[in-house]
Amino acid sequence: MKTNIKPAEGKLGILIPGLGAVATTLIAGVEAVKKGISQPIGSLTQMGNIRLGKRTENRFPKVKDFVPLANLNDIVFGGWDVYSDNVYEAAMKAKVLEPGLLNQVKAELEVVVPMKAAFDKNYAKNLIGTNIKTGTRYELAQQVMEDILAFKERHGCDRIVLVWCGSTEIYYEASDIHQSLEKFEQALILDDKRISPSMIYAYSALKLGIPFANGAPNLTVDIPAMIELAKLTDTPIAGKDFKTGQTLMKTILAPGLAARSLGVRGWFSTNILGNRDGLVLDDPDNFKTKEVSKLGVLEDILRPDANPELYGDLYHKIRIDYYPPHGDNKESWDNIDIFGWLGYKMQIKINFLCRDSILAAPIALDLALFSDLAKRAGMSGIQEWLSFYLKSPQTAEGLHPENDIFKQLIKLQNTLRHLMGEDLITHLGLDYYQELVDVL
Amino acid sequence: MKTNIKPAEGKLGILIPGLGAVATTLIAGVEAVKKGISQPIGSLTQMGNIRLGKRTENRFPKVKDFVPLANLNDIVFGGWDVYSDNVYEAAMKAKVLEPGLLNQVKAELEVVVPMKAAFDKNYAKNLIGTNIKTGTRYELAQQVMEDILAFKERHGCDRIVLVWCGSTEIYYEASDIHQSLEKFEQALILDDKRISPSMIYAYSALKLGIPFANGAPNLTVDIPAMIELAKLTDTPIAGKDFKTGQTLMKTILAPGLAARSLGVRGWFSTNILGNRDGLVLDDPDNFKTKEVSKLGVLEDILRPDANPELYGDLYHKIRIDYYPPHGDNKESWDNIDIFGWLGYKMQIKINFLCRDSILAAPIALDLALFSDLAKRAGMSGIQEWLSFYLKSPQTAEGLHPENDIFKQLIKLQNTLRHLMGEDLITHLGLDYYQELVDVL
Amino acid sequence: MKTNIKPAEGKLGILIPGLGAVATTLIAGVEAVKKGISQPIGSLTQMGNIRLGKRTENRFPKVKDFVPLANLNDIVFGGWDVYSDNVYEAAMKAKVLEPGLLNQVKAELEVVVPMKAAFDKNYAKNLIGTNIKTGTRYELAQQVMEDILAFKERHGCDRIVLVWCGSTEIYYEASDIHQSLEKFEQALILDDKRISPSMIYAYSALKLGIPFANGAPNLTVDIPAMIELAKLTDTPIAGKDFKTGQTLMKTILAPGLAARSLGVRGWFSTNILGNRDGLVLDDPDNFKTKEVSKLGVLEDILRPDANPELYGDLYHKIRIDYYPPHGDNKESWDNIDIFGWLGYKMQIKINFLCRDSILAAPIALDLALFSDLAKRAGMSGIQEWLSFYLKSPQTAEGLHPENDIFKQLIKLQNTLRHLMGEDLITHLGLDYYQELVDVL
Amino acid sequence: MKTNIKPAEGKLGILIPGLGAVATTLIAGVEAVKKGISQPIGSLTQMGNIRLGKRTENRFPKVKDFVPLANLNDIVFGGWDVYSDNVYEAAMKAKVLEPGLLNQVKAELEVVVPMKAAFDKNYAKNLIGTNIKTGTRYELAQQVMEDILAFKERHGCDRIVLVWCGSTEIYYEASDIHQSLEKFEQALILDDKRISPSMIYAYSALKLGIPFANGAPNLTVDIPAMIELAKLTDTPIAGKDFKTGQTLMKTILAPGLAARSLGVRGWFSTNILGNRDGLVLDDPDNFKTKEVSKLGVLEDILRPDANPELYGDLYHKIRIDYYPPHGDNKESWDNIDIFGWLGYKMQIKINFLCRDSILAAPIALDLALFSDLAKRAGMSGIQEWLSFYLKSPQTAEGLHPENDIFKQLIKLQNTLRHLMGEDLITHLGLDYYQELVDVL
Repeated sequence: MKTNIKPAEGKLGILIPGLGAVATTLIAGVEAVKKGISQPIGSLTQMGNIRLGKRTENRFPKVKDFVPLANLNDIVFGGWDVYSDNVYEAAMKAKVLEPGLLNQVKAELEVVVPMKAAFDKNYAKNLIGTNIKTGTRYELAQQVMEDILAFKERHGCDRIVLVWCGSTEIYYEASDIHQSLEKFEQALILDDKRISPSMIYAYSALKLGIPFANGAPNLTVDIPAMIELAKLTDTPIAGKDFKTGQTLMKTILAPGLAARSLGVRGWFSTNILGNRDGLVLDDPDNFKTKEVSKLGVLEDILRPDANPELYGDLYHKIRIDYYPPHGDNKESWDNIDIFGWLGYKMQIKINFLCRDSILAAPIALDLALFSDLAKRAGMSGIQEWLSFYLKSPQTAEGLHPENDIFKQLIKLQNTLRHLMGEDLITHLGLDYYQELVDVL
Repeated sequence: MKTNIKPAEGKLGILIPGLGAVATTLIAGVEAVKKGISQPIGSLTQMGNIRLGKRTENRFPKVKDFVPLANLNDIVFGGWDVYSDNVYEAAMKAKVLEPGLLNQVKAELEVVVPMKAAFDKNYAKNLIGTNIKTGTRYELAQQVMEDILAFKERHGCDRIVLVWCGSTEIYYEASDIHQSLEKFEQALILDDKRISPSMIYAYSALKLGIPFANGAPNLTVDIPAMIELAKLTDTPIAGKDFKTGQTLMKTILAPGLAARSLGVRGWFSTNILGNRDGLVLDDPDNFKTKEVSKLGVLEDILRPDANPELYGDLYHKIRIDYYPPHGDNKESWDNIDIFGWLGYKMQIKINFLCRDSILAAPIALDLALFSDLAKRAGMSGIQEWLSFYLKSPQTAEGLHPENDIFKQLIKLQNTLRHLMGEDLITHLGLDYYQELVDVL
Repeated sequence: MKTNIKPAEGKLGILIPGLGAVATTLIAGVEAVKKGISQPIGSLTQMGNIRLGKRTENRFPKVKDFVPLANLNDIVFGGWDVYSDNVYEAAMKAKVLEPGLLNQVKAELEVVVPMKAAFDKNYAKNLIGTNIKTGTRYELAQQVMEDILAFKERHGCDRIVLVWCGSTEIYYEASDIHQSLEKFEQALILDDKRISPSMIYAYSALKLGIPFANGAPNLTVDIPAMIELAKLTDTPIAGKDFKTGQTLMKTILAPGLAARSLGVRGWFSTNILGNRDGLVLDDPDNFKTKEVSKLGVLEDILRPDANPELYGDLYHKIRIDYYPPHGDNKESWDNIDIFGWLGYKMQIKINFLCRDSILAAPIALDLALFSDLAKRAGMSGIQEWLSFYLKSPQTAEGLHPENDIFKQLIKLQNTLRHLMGEDLITHLGLDYYQELVDVL
Repeated sequence: MKTNIKPAEGKLGILIPGLGAVATTLIAGVEAVKKGISQPIGSLTQMGNIRLGKRTENRFPKVKDFVPLANLNDIVFGGWDVYSDNVYEAAMKAKVLEPGLLNQVKAELEVVVPMKAAFDKNYAKNLIGTNIKTGTRYELAQQVMEDILAFKERHGCDRIVLVWCGSTEIYYEASDIHQSLEKFEQALILDDKRISPSMIYAYSALKLGIPFANGAPNLTVDIPAMIELAKLTDTPIAGKDFKTGQTLMKTILAPGLAARSLGVRGWFSTNILGNRDGLVLDDPDNFKTKEVSKLGVLEDILRPDANPELYGDLYHKIRIDYYPPHGDNKESWDNIDIFGWLGYKMQIKINFLCRDSILAAPIALDLALFSDLAKRAGMSGIQEWLSFYLKSPQTAEGLHPENDIFKQLIKLQNTLRHLMGEDLITHLGLDYYQELVDVL
């Protein structure tokens, strides 16, 4: 099995549309880690372990020592943005990381200057950008492909991945032009406004056989045309919406309640944040995209269809409020009305004082590294095993997405074990109790 | 496989040492469910579903329709207590369930009158009991066995299980008399004070081949002597300490943090409750038993040995305070200091307004029903697959206990699938993405 | 002084436009108190004490024993509503009080049947009423006056007060027709839609010399025309918006922060409630009325004009969400970003699990009783000393309203002391330290 | 009146026993303010305003512009500590203020080197000091007086005040040696161990006519002997225990609940902190001193004697836990069980993420400046008007202490108005409503 995976040799270019708070936190962090200043906490690929074999074998290697991932020292960053600030300047404005830290990697960050962005203001009204490409959508795609190839050449990269870290686009649904590659390419030529900016990047990447991961809730690669293209060029795709903060907590907690057959009558979730993301989401059209992404997780985990007595009457409400005093320090408060034995009511309140970009950056890194691994392992199309990182994971047609973070984790881990020829783990464990097995 | 499990025919007697808040809530609830007044929310055996086969098969039966469990209508309750109140009176005093509900099952509850308890005040100083057996420990064990057999005969039971719902005993560790069945039986005859009351019940049950589940954190069946006896009489045991409230939340949340490689620097847990359990735990000796049970879960889930950068410096503190205004409405508040990317700090606060007995009652029910299933399936000794319900699960010697509730759930579910001859589920799911499998 | 107050003899009729959750909770409660079943907790007039004289005198009578208030046994209730349910039925639907309690006063509640309401759907789109008067605004006012007089006659009342407990009307500002009594009466005849339903009730009451208190945030009596009329007929008015829940907490906490010169950078307030009030406020037009009422309190207490370094940059945001699972059990969560010495940041989180009508009912009672007292004491027009009970208190032109609940309390208490000829209290207290006074 | 206050000319020396987190935060802060780097937020004397005259006069000067206080530029700091670190080193270890800030005032802080402390390990077992005076208690007092005079001379100070910022001493009650100055001085000579270290400082100061304020809950100046001495030497005293964090919140909130006649059934308060103060309080003997100080406030505010239906059954519990992850960032969580109309239950949860020394430092400053003012104004003995700053304020014999922070504030403000010959404010305000006054 292992022999089928191409080695992670040479440089890996990570190209990012949207060099805002998340992307600059990622880039600055990787540079700090390379210098030994900081640690990549929150990254499963860098810090996580994976159990192999029986519990008594005590095999528990780091993930990065188990599967052949690109080394952080081999990573080169680049990207596009509607603002022309270099990554040092953008990071200072984002106010996520302390100036003291940023100054230690200033030189590395200043050289990352954003390429001009493919942008359409209709998709994010609260953004005012100046560093913008011109041309029809078809021309923009050509320019993005040229950008990618030029970057690859300039930095001597062996491989490239794209990770969308741009803002949430306004809400839209898939229309006919998104249903097949042929229709999509026609629409591209016709400069059809239903092609969103993020789709231009995704198309450009996939066309070149470059993996694409989508950190925002916009459809982007979650349309038939892109899936078709991904298969055609043997390219992995992963989407959508980095699972951070409140939804992370929700997909941790809800499986626990469901495991115990505790009923849920209401779940009220409010968020306050004051960064650029919060500003964009203050527009109802953009909020709707995020809301749809966030609302879905409970239904998929709790299955009200199969458990109407427990979850049939669930009232789920989500709020996001722009609150400048908090900056990037997103904070959530959840009130959960549950009921137990004989219907008696209980309540859970969760207050998460989190940091949006601090949680998102390692996810972006892992998606980049795992997408690159998938490409080298010959996997293409939807990578459901990466749904661990995503609020609204793509799945094969006809399948319910799996939002339970623990099933997602097992899926990810067993995929890695499978790739490396290790036994899958079922946690059955009856073999530790020998006499039982004899009986059975 | 299925043919190896004896059918659940005839009556099942559930005998409970400790007819306090938890037990009376359980009994009243089951009677209310039998009458169609209420629903057994929180019980996996009654309300839970289990996925079978591939996701596309859409097989998702109720657990009780999948494995042959005793029917609630075939259950008869009995028990022992240091107070002589019948279950109706005790339930009224416990103030967990509303009088309106209790009055609807008054007749059924009044007939359950506690047998005299085997008790030693040194193990619970804050309890003052009057309904107490006399005699040496050996004689007490004989009396308990007689009680059991008389109950079985009187109610025409086919099978019996015991579930300890008594108070937490003071802290003690296993000593030499607990190391083998022989030494234990000698000590019994010598009326050795190191044999706690709960051990007398456990010994009596196991001697008769009757499953025993332990809902409190005292050792009880978690000593070599009892494991030996359980194997000898082909009897399942399960312990220890019902996993409710704060520890339930902890074993839901901690695996989520660990999954994402988020660091944990501190975890402060405080509890306030005002029921009899709270009064007993107000004694430092009894609190210590509970504290040890509650403290262990984080270490086992987070593995600071394997992840010293993330969890090596974790400060974990637990408080329980007796607070009469809350009665049985136990409330917990947790402050969790976590850190992410580059060590940046975040905080999670969880406030759980729970109800102690409401959460515990369905656990007691499930443990009774699954222990009975295990017995009929020929399983004996430690039932690690029931650790899903327990704060401090027993495991085979040399194995770390598994406290991650999601691994516990998979273990439970795959055990059921295994018993019934169904495929185990690994959540790999690559087969849904056919082209990938071809490549691999 | 005392001799100037007419005695509280005979029956007092309390007439309420809006027999919903608050009003039915008030009426049922007073009837239960009369029968000795319950206590009027939360009512300063019934339960509160007032200090008189020097601390060493130890004079601390109940308020009701100090000032001549109407006795609860002399109260008769009546009212208007858009639904025709009698108060027992309406209370059952409101689900604030337990059926067990309501049934004990069923007879007293059933006889209170709402008179037809003066209603205009444009002022509360989410309400669908059927028990409605017809006619022009002028005719409606005539009908309301007839209702009042008929009620007074039928029940043999000596005096009447009106307390608005209806829903919040949509947002509107005072226009020219509200600027003088003459213009208002002309507009009434012209059936001008700018006259809101609540104004019809207020006009009718004041015209008859009957005190009017306004529990909702709509302007109602807070317009020049009504103030003019109140003076003309020697009638007290009090408004607006019962101060319950979150705003109560805010006007308790903010004065404390200001007292200590602690800075406030942000205050985020969210509310969830599921009663009829919540439904009405789910309409943005009605929410705006409430928002304006709630937003003002911080500015008045913190005085950013005088303390720009501390409060000049305060971001204040308020949310109310309709959340059916909570019913009348309104819940608020506040995040307050404060800063102290050298600008260091701190946070306060307040989670108030309150009950909307339980907090409002005693306020309605006190306003009724104190308005009646004011009338008998010859006080007319704006009663600023009752701002203690109100979110958005009316004041004389040119005066900032006083929202600090502790200044409001002193104002109220010193007004009572003044009315009864007692010394005002300044808390100076230097006289207890005799030697100091000699020096000074 | 004003003419009686001596002007604040020349230098004021603030001498502090205990140069730990609070004191170093105070000193560094004042130096930073002098340089214009920071602002003295949280200090009423520096940032607060005071209303004068009628509301319509709009007189709202800064306190420091109204009463003649020492200017910050005229302050010189000194002190004693059991550790020999200078204030820069101690502040770095305390980790309250950022190194970036401390380095800007490094020169000013390094010159403040602690004098050897009068210490007795029996009063604080968890402290291990090395910078300690030797001698009998009488000799220690002589040494402290010499220290004070030498400091005054060395720095050319016009006046001196002492503010105790040392750790909480173990619990002790006043005994016979504390009952008169004569007995106290005899005990001093006899080196009686019942004289605590803080009393040695207080005695030394008062003997020299120097004001003494006590920031910890130990008795210190709250004994007859010290009050006698203070009167003898015309010296103001103020104690005890800086009112910060949880108790600050409690004395803000409780008066609000009492104002509204809302019942309180339970108040559970937990605190976590990880600084030296937390370490000292981890010893039960020291905790008891703090507990007594913290417990008293509710009783005094709620008056269960006068309101047994509302507060007669109140269960009040306080916990402090040493929790190193938080350092000086003390955090409190309060659960308050209240009840309203007809006894219906509600809950308030307050989570205060505060900073202990940030809240305490401005209090220490204000107490120093106001004590100096009092001395110049000829006020001596107990300064009850400073109870605004104190958890457990001293009062004249036979008087209940006033813990309601709003009454304390009015007392303070009216004292200042009284000193300066301004009208006291009663908030009556009926004169704004002219017609009423005519009637009355």
